[in-house]
Amino acid sequence: MTENQKAVVLEAKGRISIEDRPVPQIEDPHYVKLQIKKTGICGSDVHYYVAGAIGNFVVKKPMILGHESSGIVTEVGKAVTSVKVGDKVAIEPGIPSRYSDETKAGNYNLCPEMKFAATPPYDGTLVKYYLAPEDFVVKLPEHVSLEEGALVEPLSVGVHANKLAKLSFNQKVAVFGAGPVGLLTGAVARAFGASEVVFIDVFPHKLKLSSKFGGTKFVDSSKIKDEELLVAEIVKELDSEQPEVVFDCSGAEVCIRAGIKVCKTGGTYVQVGAGKEDVNFPIAAIGPKELKVLGCFRYAFGDYRDAVQLISTGAVDVKPLVTHRFKFEDAVKAYEFNVKCGSEVIKTIIDGPE
Amino acid sequence: MTENQKAVVLEAKGRISIEDRPVPQIEDPHYVKLQIKKTGICGSDVHYYVAGAIGNFVVKKPMILGHESSGIVTEVGKAVTSVKVGDKVAIEPGIPSRYSDETKAGNYNLCPEMKFAATPPYDGTLVKYYLAPEDFVVKLPEHVSLEEGALVEPLSVGVHANKLAKLSFNQKVAVFGAGPVGLLTGAVARAFGASEVVFIDVFPHKLKLSSKFGGTKFVDSSKIKDEELLVAEIVKELDSEQPEVVFDCSGAEVCIRAGIKVCKTGGTYVQVGAGKEDVNFPIAAIGPKELKVLGCFRYAFGDYRDAVQLISTGAVDVKPLVTHRFKFEDAVKAYEFNVKCGSEVIKTIIDGPE
Amino acid sequence: MTENQKAVVLEAKGRISIEDRPVPQIEDPHYVKLQIKKTGICGSDVHYYVAGAIGNFVVKKPMILGHESSGIVTEVGKAVTSVKVGDKVAIEPGIPSRYSDETKAGNYNLCPEMKFAATPPYDGTLVKYYLAPEDFVVKLPEHVSLEEGALVEPLSVGVHANKLAKLSFNQKVAVFGAGPVGLLTGAVARAFGASEVVFIDVFPHKLKLSSKFGGTKFVDSSKIKDEELLVAEIVKELDSEQPEVVFDCSGAEVCIRAGIKVCKTGGTYVQVGAGKEDVNFPIAAIGPKELKVLGCFRYAFGDYRDAVQLISTGAVDVKPLVTHRFKFEDAVKAYEFNVKCGSEVIKTIIDGPE
Amino acid sequence: MTENQKAVVLEAKGRISIEDRPVPQIEDPHYVKLQIKKTGICGSDVHYYVAGAIGNFVVKKPMILGHESSGIVTEVGKAVTSVKVGDKVAIEPGIPSRYSDETKAGNYNLCPEMKFAATPPYDGTLVKYYLAPEDFVVKLPEHVSLEEGALVEPLSVGVHANKLAKLSFNQKVAVFGAGPVGLLTGAVARAFGASEVVFIDVFPHKLKLSSKFGGTKFVDSSKIKDEELLVAEIVKELDSEQPEVVFDCSGAEVCIRAGIKVCKTGGTYVQVGAGKEDVNFPIAAIGPKELKVLGCFRYAFGDYRDAVQLISTGAVDVKPLVTHRFKFEDAVKAYEFNVKCGSEVIKTIIDGPE
Repeated sequence: MTENQKAVVLEAKGRISIEDRPVPQIEDPHYVKLQIKKTGICGSDVHYYVAGAIGNFVVKKPMILGHESSGIVTEVGKAVTSVKVGDKVAIEPGIPSRYSDETKAGNYNLCPEMKFAATPPYDGTLVKYYLAPEDFVVKLPEHVSLEEGALVEPLSVGVHANKLAKLSFNQKVAVFGAGPVGLLTGAVARAFGASEVVFIDVFPHKLKLSSKFGGTKFVDSSKIKDEELLVAEIVKELDSEQPEVVFDCSGAEVCIRAGIKVCKTGGTYVQVGAGKEDVNFPIAAIGPKELKVLGCFRYAFGDYRDAVQLISTGAVDVKPLVTHRFKFEDAVKAYEFNVKCGSEVIKTIIDGPE
Repeated sequence: MTENQKAVVLEAKGRISIEDRPVPQIEDPHYVKLQIKKTGICGSDVHYYVAGAIGNFVVKKPMILGHESSGIVTEVGKAVTSVKVGDKVAIEPGIPSRYSDETKAGNYNLCPEMKFAATPPYDGTLVKYYLAPEDFVVKLPEHVSLEEGALVEPLSVGVHANKLAKLSFNQKVAVFGAGPVGLLTGAVARAFGASEVVFIDVFPHKLKLSSKFGGTKFVDSSKIKDEELLVAEIVKELDSEQPEVVFDCSGAEVCIRAGIKVCKTGGTYVQVGAGKEDVNFPIAAIGPKELKVLGCFRYAFGDYRDAVQLISTGAVDVKPLVTHRFKFEDAVKAYEFNVKCGSEVIKTIIDGPE
Repeated sequence: MTENQKAVVLEAKGRISIEDRPVPQIEDPHYVKLQIKKTGICGSDVHYYVAGAIGNFVVKKPMILGHESSGIVTEVGKAVTSVKVGDKVAIEPGIPSRYSDETKAGNYNLCPEMKFAATPPYDGTLVKYYLAPEDFVVKLPEHVSLEEGALVEPLSVGVHANKLAKLSFNQKVAVFGAGPVGLLTGAVARAFGASEVVFIDVFPHKLKLSSKFGGTKFVDSSKIKDEELLVAEIVKELDSEQPEVVFDCSGAEVCIRAGIKVCKTGGTYVQVGAGKEDVNFPIAAIGPKELKVLGCFRYAFGDYRDAVQLISTGAVDVKPLVTHRFKFEDAVKAYEFNVKCGSEVIKTIIDGPE
Repeated sequence: MTENQKAVVLEAKGRISIEDRPVPQIEDPHYVKLQIKKTGICGSDVHYYVAGAIGNFVVKKPMILGHESSGIVTEVGKAVTSVKVGDKVAIEPGIPSRYSDETKAGNYNLCPEMKFAATPPYDGTLVKYYLAPEDFVVKLPEHVSLEEGALVEPLSVGVHANKLAKLSFNQKVAVFGAGPVGLLTGAVARAFGASEVVFIDVFPHKLKLSSKFGGTKFVDSSKIKDEELLVAEIVKELDSEQPEVVFDCSGAEVCIRAGIKVCKTGGTYVQVGAGKEDVNFPIAAIGPKELKVLGCFRYAFGDYRDAVQLISTGAVDVKPLVTHRFKFEDAVKAYEFNVKCGSEVIKTIIDGPE
């Protein structure tokens, strides 16, 4: 007889409810069973809720939400050696095929057969018990909390973006967009040795928060509508220098354009955020500067571990990111709140289920 | 008393004439004096002639044209050790500062103090005697002709683009635009080990020519107006695979869009050609594929030598590129012809002066 | 009832016999069953035969020999999509764990849980039917023979060594040791664009053969006992230049020393061959030249495919490598012959079993 | 009439004296004149004093000593734009040719025409006035002292070694030899994100000091004569893990051997220190691990700036390195003291001349 558990289910665009789902059983000997403890709400979850789709990923049938989770190991498969029952872990929500070229080449994030939690049609982590392969959970040190463990997911995005950029000591960085991913990307840049991290955002309260996430300079772009003025302002903040690395975590056209234009000759621009399908792009600006414009997608081998290390050593303090908390039973309210309150929310954590 | 020589001078937008200019004298002991023998006409020369400017480079005073040249060493400075009088050489037309960060970091093409022949305000090579530092001329082997020597310049652009792309053995390549730079870029890709090189162009005669420049597959895009159909056609030609490397040598928006979309997950797109300042760019397509979109500018350390080696070993045959030849005395006609005949011309060589 | 097949078994040091072994059955749905057709004899096989061990790998129980094999797919697991029954394939003999850090980082050759055919305690390929995961066989084009397919294994070693060295167009290369791996490494270097490949060996007949494997210059080191003279001779052959890349495929101390010393400033030395545990090494020579001295081990993701492509396109002709052929029934004789005849043999192929 | 200044001159092996030398005059418009303020004594200086030579560099005529210097700009050439009179600067002591391949490829440290201060036959910095090109001095911020400025030189060696190793966040590092270069290399590794830095030395007082230079674990090798035991001890300190990066800053054979053996599969070993010409080297250990063994030489483009930034931000505190100070007038005593006191001295600073 199958045991049931509660799950936060996006039934269709605009409709979330808490439903019963079977508790999964370990079949693959490399898997572990986890009790989910803390789960962050990601912009993508909210987007699926509101729009029912992100690009080609369309919610066609009910899907359990959640992919930024930490938990406790409650059972291990027979082949498992790296974790044990009782371990506190951060959970990677995307499991690639072990057979794809991309995985074997070291880029499992690009695996075409990726099964990613809460990306249609795959169920997410907002349940009591969840299965994952042992090598896709990372043990948290004693002094790292489960809430911090849930934040390893977005922090890993920042780690990955910085590695793609080959961010190195003494570089100057501009981060467009001071939402969770922007804040964490900037914080990682600083932890990796950036000498300056300029945050650019239209919300003063986000800029203020960015000073806790590596920000050394701040540009309030709410009144700067022109990209050239924005470029000039950033350069002014950097004492007449241009950033070697630019992360766009906004997806906004004006930021993309300013980001490309402000980036230093020979520099690297990473498109971390996603917005419109197409933008009016200053293509002529990348040639004479030999800019590297890099697409960036989630995280790959080693990023989760590095994120845990950043938290563990205090190199990045993720805690100020959490602005709101809800109980698992109130998950529906949590999503509704995220939709309504927009920029006020930085990161919401769902606690539980018990 | 200063000796004079004839020079092909762009006096202003739309006006070229042959004028007297002083024969330059070696002052820097590292310089050599060269007698110019063959000079290719580049699209940029024609553009300065027609439009008086390329981007921020504006012709404000008369400027000698020409930068794709070969010649004979006629005199050497006191410190010169690598070439001697009588040597047949290809001439790099851009001399960077030796003190800039970019030069010292190995990227002299990005030097902000670059003095590039026939790029305002610097004079070009269409004269009898021309000066260059010894390390910016590359000796041509006996069996390489002076005409081939002049083609080292555009070939170096192809070499540089391929090195930026880190093109490696067994990769599939798409080249948009089968003009001189596209043809040579594709030819270098093939010489560097590409297993397939698909050329895409609207002119059937250029596609036909591309089979001599490494082309293994050919897509006539003259009747394919839709980018998605263009993508599908390229994939079909590659037996349902996508190219790992895409070179856009067209600058056309439809090519840029198709190039980004057709490029394989994890692949590299190099913007070799230049067109409009801004394009409608499929930015959302670069994220999930983690595409590398690279600006590309001229050539840097080692590219000229590699280009000479490609010609010398027969790995690339540049000769079929030359469709028209003019005497130095007829240089004005040569430029007029290039303006009028458009796509018919692939490469025009100016011979001399005597 | 288990069906049996014949197998070439190394029972213990110095004792090979043909014995019965069970025909394996597909259990993992990603696996295919292969009928082995051609198998090359590798120096390591011979070494296990003669010495019973290579380093820490000790033959403690009977082990089937053979790991350089091609075959025909005779059955496929349920999940297999990339090959089908009847396909002619080259077979990778080493299957890594899918869970190790090394595999996921893109270096499955370094996986500590590697199961490598004919490396104790894992059985080899000298049987009729053999199992492999579908992604560790590479389809051979129609025009590539099964014998060439068996040679994909040593060719992949050469591919891997050249990729490690980041061998690029127009580099000069020195290869110490013109045995099978040396010959193939040099051939790949040339196919990847090396302008010169100097082979150094003590056997004139191997040097002669090397001209079919990319060799452009040849140094008979049989009479040059002093490493400095050897260095001088190589530089002389290269018109007073030093090789940017050195492959030692000999494992001999004098070659290692000469290889380090002859390698150009900023160059790369790859230790492909194995010999003594310790050598008298010119450590002071690597500092001021900032040499990169690279360990090299087997092959990793993509190398087998590139090797097949090199053969398929004719970029490398592996056929002249085969100097001797034996029937499967005569496998014991084949090994004995390899032991006795030493340097005379380049590569022996075992045909079958029927 | 030429003005004279005092200089610390190594007249020949074993003989240093203070002599008169002409004050140099700016001839090249890119040069600046510097008043030398602080100069560190390097092991190489002491070695020239004691042995009269290092490798091929032989003191054949009197040579001014000193190459670890800071100073004040007292005069600037006509083309100088980056510094001005009165600026406090760290001085790079090696000036390469601007024309060599190595310099143009971004590795000026490998330039064969390098003129390096206090490396025969080039004079050093232990004078009152010294000339350098403007791009080989780096401005020190207000809060960085001239003594710290002198230590930029050895710190740059550590920066360079870490960049060669591509040291990245969360790596484990072993440093053999806790002399000035070892200490600074470890400190840079930690500043670049190393999670652990194990120092290995035979002197307890140096190990103790290393805790101020990034050291997290310490192995006193004075009683561990066997390399395997040394390897085991290091692994034990790292909780059963192996370091991904090993820096040998000792040049001692036992350290080189242990360093190669302890280095993790796929890891990087950098030979920073210099000792004997030849060592008994465990060559067989680098293959199956695919180790990268890197030669390392001085520093190149950007290293000095990064070193200044490390000091300026407090990421590395170089001050505890200085154990002894002497006046310029007592420079001879300073050298004698360094010879006599050996391991007791970490770094000696010569102050002045006035």
